[in-house]
Amino acid sequence: MTAESATEKSLLVIGLGMIGGSVLRSARAHGSAEVILGYDSRDDVNLLAYEQGVVDNRPAALQELIAQASMIVLAVPPMTFPAVFTELASIGVADGTVLTDVASVKGPVLDACRQFAPELLSVFLPAHPIAGSEQSGLMASKVDLFKQKKLILTPHADVSNAAAHRVANFWGSLDCLLAELEPDLHDDLLASTSHLPHVLAYVLVDSLLLHPETDRLFEFAAGGFQDISRTASSDPTMWHDVFFSNKECVLAAVEQFEKRLALFKSMVENGESQRLFDMLSTAKKGRDNYLAKYRS
Amino acid sequence: MTAESATEKSLLVIGLGMIGGSVLRSARAHGSAEVILGYDSRDDVNLLAYEQGVVDNRPAALQELIAQASMIVLAVPPMTFPAVFTELASIGVADGTVLTDVASVKGPVLDACRQFAPELLSVFLPAHPIAGSEQSGLMASKVDLFKQKKLILTPHADVSNAAAHRVANFWGSLDCLLAELEPDLHDDLLASTSHLPHVLAYVLVDSLLLHPETDRLFEFAAGGFQDISRTASSDPTMWHDVFFSNKECVLAAVEQFEKRLALFKSMVENGESQRLFDMLSTAKKGRDNYLAKYRS
Repeated sequence: MTAESATEKSLLVIGLGMIGGSVLRSARAHGSAEVILGYDSRDDVNLLAYEQGVVDNRPAALQELIAQASMIVLAVPPMTFPAVFTELASIGVADGTVLTDVASVKGPVLDACRQFAPELLSVFLPAHPIAGSEQSGLMASKVDLFKQKKLILTPHADVSNAAAHRVANFWGSLDCLLAELEPDLHDDLLASTSHLPHVLAYVLVDSLLLHPETDRLFEFAAGGFQDISRTASSDPTMWHDVFFSNKECVLAAVEQFEKRLALFKSMVENGESQRLFDMLSTAKKGRDNYLAKYRS
Repeated sequence: MTAESATEKSLLVIGLGMIGGSVLRSARAHGSAEVILGYDSRDDVNLLAYEQGVVDNRPAALQELIAQASMIVLAVPPMTFPAVFTELASIGVADGTVLTDVASVKGPVLDACRQFAPELLSVFLPAHPIAGSEQSGLMASKVDLFKQKKLILTPHADVSNAAAHRVANFWGSLDCLLAELEPDLHDDLLASTSHLPHVLAYVLVDSLLLHPETDRLFEFAAGGFQDISRTASSDPTMWHDVFFSNKECVLAAVEQFEKRLALFKSMVENGESQRLFDMLSTAKKGRDNYLAKYRS
């Protein structure tokens, strides 16, 4: 999919965290919308967004902002979608307004739309920018967060071509590299490459905090620990929601990991030297290939 | 422990991998020894080290090099120590020569010395530089690898003060930050902060390679995956040896992790929202504190 430059009349981002804020900053920098609006459930965040020049609007009621928006981006934690769709359905969205989102899960977000705002399905094309960091909050947002980063669109049977086209153009205007996946496949793949790694990082730190010598443990931790634990500094609300929303895929990925960890243990316990060496070598090759193919 | 600048008559590093090569480059840069010698079990590596100016000597027999060395650094994989100590005991080490090493495990290395070269215990002070990377081999060695990085010395009852002093001075001359730990405590702590994270990285990649959609999996992997899997690109021989050498502590750390992972799973399965949020929040706080305290 290629993108054309696009100018929306008015962009509204709901949820002014790190990702939502970055959408706004990037949209302003790229001229992706004439008017740049934002809304957060926290008043202090709405004020900050206005004072920092991230949005054009002073803090306002969601209803007022929705009435002006031609493009709405939902940037709230996954489990907030039912409430947001309920509110959007109740307020009503103007003809010609289209919707997208940034959540790390796609099936559950579509389900929420289908259940709480079915009339919006035809104008909603879900999206997941593969960009982020362990930081959170508006002040961590960046103008170039999405620059040349993959963005996965998950088209579905109910979205109109016109709406899909406009949403894709909008994301393309932020200099994202657009890709497409079927929503359930997205959730399956990301459970393994993103959600499982977050589980491991959180549980690793959790596990180390229970060590009787926690202080000395962290004192002598090396660079490898800093990297592998990085995502444990991510927003707990966000990841709590991802784990519950994508429960089935996350549990399947964790269980597959547990099986292989048990195999690793049995190899070490039983002194299976060659098998262990082969397991480590194959993993190294797999990781080196990934790096060479997708990160060069 | 503070370090004085020290000049050894002659340094010999046995094992010319990434760490061994970095010891040599750093020692030359800091004038830590008048003569810089190296030995590897592979002839091509010995030649490369000479041609690259990493060592002063052309490829030579280990016996010849040992006869000239006042400071010997053992930079071989953990399970090679019994063979190396056997060889050192058989060749014999000159009066006044002292020994240190760079292995990620300390108890097993001391045990190997006690068993295969007990006469060297009094001149052997084990060391573990907390510096490294997923890269391996002589060409990955760096002159500043140890600069302002922690180096853990593990003094033991049998080492003489004079030998311990010289070894500490040598490492201090490479601009390391010297610290001390009892050998068994070192192996316990590092099993949690270094060996376990390596297990998780290897098993994560191993696990993903078995996914039916492996190719698309890696295609859509994000930066978080790149970081958390980084150490899976480490040398399989090294880590095979670390896992077996430090078997008891590694298995204990893995088992503690497994317990907490099982708890995570049960929270997700049973919809224990608040407990899961608390677990993630505590881990985030723990990781943020570690960063603020030891990585600022």
